[in-house]
Amino acid sequence: MKTLPGFRDFYPEDCARREFITGTWREVARRYGFVEYDGPVLEPFELFAKKSGGEIAGQLFEFTDKGGRHVSLRPEMTPTLARMVAARSRDYRKPLKWFSVASFFRYEKQQRGRLREFLQLNCDLLGDERPAADAELAALAIDLLRAFGLTREDFVVRLSDRRAWLAFLERKGHGADRAQDFLAIIDKMEREPAETVEAKLREFGCGLSEVRDFIANPADASPEISRVTRNLCQRGLGGFFEIDLTIVRGLAYYTGMVFEIFDRGRTLRALAGGGRYDRLVHHLSDGAADLPALGFGMGDVVLGELIAATPRARVLMETSVRTAGNIDVFVAVADETRRSEALALVQSLRDAGLRVDYPMGPVKLGKQFQSAELAGARHAVLVGTEWPGVKVKELATRTEREMSADAVVADLSSTAAVK
Amino acid sequence: MKTLPGFRDFYPEDCARREFITGTWREVARRYGFVEYDGPVLEPFELFAKKSGGEIAGQLFEFTDKGGRHVSLRPEMTPTLARMVAARSRDYRKPLKWFSVASFFRYEKQQRGRLREFLQLNCDLLGDERPAADAELAALAIDLLRAFGLTREDFVVRLSDRRAWLAFLERKGHGADRAQDFLAIIDKMEREPAETVEAKLREFGCGLSEVRDFIANPADASPEISRVTRNLCQRGLGGFFEIDLTIVRGLAYYTGMVFEIFDRGRTLRALAGGGRYDRLVHHLSDGAADLPALGFGMGDVVLGELIAATPRARVLMETSVRTAGNIDVFVAVADETRRSEALALVQSLRDAGLRVDYPMGPVKLGKQFQSAELAGARHAVLVGTEWPGVKVKELATRTEREMSADAVVADLSSTAAVK
Repeated sequence: MKTLPGFRDFYPEDCARREFITGTWREVARRYGFVEYDGPVLEPFELFAKKSGGEIAGQLFEFTDKGGRHVSLRPEMTPTLARMVAARSRDYRKPLKWFSVASFFRYEKQQRGRLREFLQLNCDLLGDERPAADAELAALAIDLLRAFGLTREDFVVRLSDRRAWLAFLERKGHGADRAQDFLAIIDKMEREPAETVEAKLREFGCGLSEVRDFIANPADASPEISRVTRNLCQRGLGGFFEIDLTIVRGLAYYTGMVFEIFDRGRTLRALAGGGRYDRLVHHLSDGAADLPALGFGMGDVVLGELIAATPRARVLMETSVRTAGNIDVFVAVADETRRSEALALVQSLRDAGLRVDYPMGPVKLGKQFQSAELAGARHAVLVGTEWPGVKVKELATRTEREMSADAVVADLSSTAAVK
Repeated sequence: MKTLPGFRDFYPEDCARREFITGTWREVARRYGFVEYDGPVLEPFELFAKKSGGEIAGQLFEFTDKGGRHVSLRPEMTPTLARMVAARSRDYRKPLKWFSVASFFRYEKQQRGRLREFLQLNCDLLGDERPAADAELAALAIDLLRAFGLTREDFVVRLSDRRAWLAFLERKGHGADRAQDFLAIIDKMEREPAETVEAKLREFGCGLSEVRDFIANPADASPEISRVTRNLCQRGLGGFFEIDLTIVRGLAYYTGMVFEIFDRGRTLRALAGGGRYDRLVHHLSDGAADLPALGFGMGDVVLGELIAATPRARVLMETSVRTAGNIDVFVAVADETRRSEALALVQSLRDAGLRVDYPMGPVKLGKQFQSAELAGARHAVLVGTEWPGVKVKELATRTEREMSADAVVADLSSTAAVK
């Protein structure tokens, strides 16, 4: 029996790869002062239907539970976050800097970079409407990728601002109510024939060349986005982004800065995407709370592909994977009559926090040393006829020392602490 | 809109509590040389139906997906583990020592210690049929709880062996085919009226007093369990267990040692339970693989209740929760004209791995120090008119030093490394 299509088993080496990614995510998010939260894997169906309309609803793993409730596996984090924040926003100092690392579920057509169960990091900053907050979040997205050994040669943040298009539309005499239809044209313009785009734009009283001109000269696209880019440059993060007004993001709820991150080679899907959604908490909480907010999501699948395709990053990951299951100490039983003493020593070493293994029955000494090497042990401790004296062997250097069993724990826990 | 009944939101402080539990689980499992694996949250329905028969099937969150597949959220880990091991058992050295920390889903009646989505640690040891392996696993279960600050005063492992009952049955002239029915009587005997139990036992040609005598004198219940307890004593873990033959575990697939762990006060449900299931991999893989195996599960809900009710353990947890979101350094902007330099310094400190926060806009200096204290910062760095000189304040001692901005990163990352 196999896994369902689009679902993954994580064997220990896969799990170590996953841990490399999620551990790095957590570490960098915490450097930015973000704290972790989470919600349920299963939620009421309406929670997701309300935000996305039909967009995501067609991809939901939804069903009726044994109590007759219409429920769904979560396809994204934002509705859960908005519910949580709305319920208790007064309990936390602003701004909230919250992140989560969680599994999501979408019934999508199987294709490269898409799975039906995937991991995603979500970082959201709530309670600050200033461009400085947009810059802080964009900088976090950049540093998250840098932490994997990826550089400005490997990826680029494509920054945009919906307000630039709103201003463009206003100059054409259109109100914000037409924005969604117009942005849908921009969103698809790179994928549709020029005539189709031209025809659609005509409804808005403008031509394709005019739109292309606007996109080609984005320097002063919006005053807010200029402050974001200036801020990023002050941090030394110039070179990691481009202004690209073709990025508008599909979802209706974005209100300001939006961005997507791509590999420089443009062979993969987006690595991350997000933006500012100042009205969403208000909308999803039926007005119970109102917080300006922005956030992004970063999935594990495309990121894993980019890491695998980038030698520097791949080496970092594989080194981490190779050593993930390593133990500190292998206790070799050289004399079976001392097995009881060996067990007590194993216990003491583990109590000191060391990772320890040993043979659970009689095994030739040569084979025990082989096991020690395979387990990546730094030290082997030989328990034999010299008891209460033992031999401590450092496996990398093959150096050997003799000491009393009492001294071993202190000796080895001090060396392990500096590893 | 609320969570579904039996499901939880994890606000940052709840998430820190969860991380305290799962982080401790992972650390102790690794001390024992166990490596982490995982499987999908959603699996084919038959995977779970096959193992448990009707037992768990009534509690499944099951449905038909958009592709017409009968699927279920996982209610337990063992079937997934058995599938994974059966598919690739030749790729790994024996014994396999595997653990996972994952979410499970059961549509159960709401009651104390029971949720519909819960976390569980699963530890399994596959490929070793000796009692030494049983002891290794039982020792791990004990050390997992000790790591939370729980002692032999707080919990007890109730050890049993199904083979003891098989031998008892054999003496009564019954074969192993009657074992399941007989063990069901033992399983319920503490909860049913004596007459009911007596009547059921009569079918097996024995009386309640005879069964009670057998339970009361378990010392030589089975030669294997005696070797397990001797082994545990050699590790210094005597006093953490009792032989209790009333423990038989509900599931049909156990073949040898079984155990459950309870709080000493017996006010809570079981903290953990497991045992040896030597035939299950063979059965679930339709004979594709055959490995002796044993394992246990430990949930987060009951454990959390015991920790909360045990002062020593509760203090450990709450200390960890209180400091979980602490930052290392707060960069205070004392002079807004130096904001650009402050941002660059923030970036350098974060690049060095430090957790750093700062105000995203103009704030009075007194208020900035208040933010630094609330964020649990060890140091505040003042960026002001003295630039490129800065003041570094250690918040606990209120001591202040002046140094050049260039020197701050090296200075603070060295102090952070020893924390």
